[in-house]
Amino acid sequence: MIILGSTGSIGKNACLLAGEHGIKINALACYKNYKELNEQIAKFNPKLVYIKDENLKKYINHKHVFTQIDGMVEFLKACKSEFEGDLLINSLVGFDGLEPSYHAQKLGFKLALANKESLVAGGKFLDTEAINPIDSEHFGLKFLLKSSPKIKKLIITASGGAFYNLSQKELKTATPQMALKHPNWDMGAKITIDSATMANKLFEVLEAYYLYSTKSIDACIERTSSIHALIDFVDGSSTAHLSKTDMKLAIAHAIGLGEKEILENVNLLELKSIKFRPINLNKYRIFALKDEVLKNPDLGVIINAANDETVYKFLEGKAGFLDISENIFKALDKFGSSSIKSIEDVFEINQKVREFCKGI
Amino acid sequence: MIILGSTGSIGKNACLLAGEHGIKINALACYKNYKELNEQIAKFNPKLVYIKDENLKKYINHKHVFTQIDGMVEFLKACKSEFEGDLLINSLVGFDGLEPSYHAQKLGFKLALANKESLVAGGKFLDTEAINPIDSEHFGLKFLLKSSPKIKKLIITASGGAFYNLSQKELKTATPQMALKHPNWDMGAKITIDSATMANKLFEVLEAYYLYSTKSIDACIERTSSIHALIDFVDGSSTAHLSKTDMKLAIAHAIGLGEKEILENVNLLELKSIKFRPINLNKYRIFALKDEVLKNPDLGVIINAANDETVYKFLEGKAGFLDISENIFKALDKFGSSSIKSIEDVFEINQKVREFCKGI
Repeated sequence: MIILGSTGSIGKNACLLAGEHGIKINALACYKNYKELNEQIAKFNPKLVYIKDENLKKYINHKHVFTQIDGMVEFLKACKSEFEGDLLINSLVGFDGLEPSYHAQKLGFKLALANKESLVAGGKFLDTEAINPIDSEHFGLKFLLKSSPKIKKLIITASGGAFYNLSQKELKTATPQMALKHPNWDMGAKITIDSATMANKLFEVLEAYYLYSTKSIDACIERTSSIHALIDFVDGSSTAHLSKTDMKLAIAHAIGLGEKEILENVNLLELKSIKFRPINLNKYRIFALKDEVLKNPDLGVIINAANDETVYKFLEGKAGFLDISENIFKALDKFGSSSIKSIEDVFEINQKVREFCKGI
Repeated sequence: MIILGSTGSIGKNACLLAGEHGIKINALACYKNYKELNEQIAKFNPKLVYIKDENLKKYINHKHVFTQIDGMVEFLKACKSEFEGDLLINSLVGFDGLEPSYHAQKLGFKLALANKESLVAGGKFLDTEAINPIDSEHFGLKFLLKSSPKIKKLIITASGGAFYNLSQKELKTATPQMALKHPNWDMGAKITIDSATMANKLFEVLEAYYLYSTKSIDACIERTSSIHALIDFVDGSSTAHLSKTDMKLAIAHAIGLGEKEILENVNLLELKSIKFRPINLNKYRIFALKDEVLKNPDLGVIINAANDETVYKFLEGKAGFLDISENIFKALDKFGSSSIKSIEDVFEINQKVREFCKGI
């Protein structure tokens, strides 16, 4: 690897990463910080170095020092004869970075570019598709355009449902009419209640496990429902998916229309503030089952059956809102150790749990 | 295409999309909404239909009506003999959706799944990798895991810089010391000033044009610098890239370390509220050049040279903050019609603009 601008902030970070990950540094170039350059020479033992200021040449502890008298282009040519095809980081500052970018590509180096001016002033003379951008925004775009496969965690969001602002005490006497006002999505009665209890989010975690074969799944509250899902990657990047709250989009993708114009994109400027909040497990007791359910996904059928029966009781005025979680916990106590070996077992346990909940 | 649960909200949206995009609907199934089913039959002329409630069969305007007496599985088998391998949308409600999901896959249909309970209760008996999820969160995850290639717009974010809260009047007397306090990034003097004038963001737009070959690029303010870039796709999805403000991440990707652990992921729960705001073009006059620059990217070298010279004057106390934009506009007036045909032209114009700005 060759670093132009090695004593600046980008250059120093690149040296740090090279050291940590065993990448060989073959050549270093800087403007005038000879002390830092000497430290880098001692550490990385580059074959060629360049310092712009001729007067500083005498302070550099190296046999092959180029300066502006030789010229940056001659330095690059010397690099080429020794390290043809190397990755070259250009983190020089300002318009002076353009000439080395231009010649680096002409000489066949792979260009990693932190020098903006190379593009701003000379972009039309560079092979821009071959550039690795070092700029948060452009790296971000590149990352989005071709996401990394190394996933660390899946995160789904929850609106918090209709009772987000209710106290524990108020939940006790909450009615179906109150629950059925979902803040963002226009949905059926059952799922609106499941959204208010967070059972829906627990189910979605379990779905994500089955769909994407990972148990590293979490959820948090995002009240506006603009961001639906995020992925944490191992490198430290995270990505998020935003869209209007309209199910047509997911449907269109599921039926092969994912490249058609289905919805308007969200207008970022019209979005309310986005704040991620934790799910309060005292309030959303059902979601406290997340880790247990990921450990033993067989619990899904039990929780679903108990939830289903009790939600319908609640909608009919025959159970309180808090009975929903209560009955799920009771059903788990009674049936939680059932082993499910076949699809027939699923239907059988489903039936038993429902009968049990009807009897409560 | 086959739709189970065609009269519910997902089913109706699927019918709508099928109508709009000319997808043939071969079979429909619903619970009991026979009026809606009859309308769908009139519109889509499906070969087979199913209504759960036997008593409603007589109201259905169709020759081949299955009910729960025949059974859903028999209905699916009849579908298989006529439409083997069809896409089957299961948007039935509740646990009853599991049996058709299970048999649909066994019979070789491609399963698009809106019925959560199929996974929650029976996920371990389904071929989950073959499922197209119809749930915003899981669709969002799927989209992130394999982004669409159909791009509509690239969006980069700006912090707003050090003077975001200053009035027009206060900008006139702003000093380098004031400008050098960037809210999020720890950067050099030049780029910190470019961030305060938004010249940096204008440059980044031009960079994005060269890197990603599109002129559909916009920018907005996001004060926390948690989200660096977004992409709008034609379907209506948007994706965002989030990370801590540390350049090591972009550098690591640029030098082939993109799958290593470089940074901690952002902790969503610790993020401040994220709000996207427009860039005030009266305040950030330089950014008002965006459309002109995208129309004529050759202006990049002029703007860069004028900006560069004046920023250094400002840092030396020899120019006011507002002179930066002023000089850029003056330089564009004088040199804006220059034609740039070669890299030598770039160096020549760069030199002329700098001399001009030195003389102002």
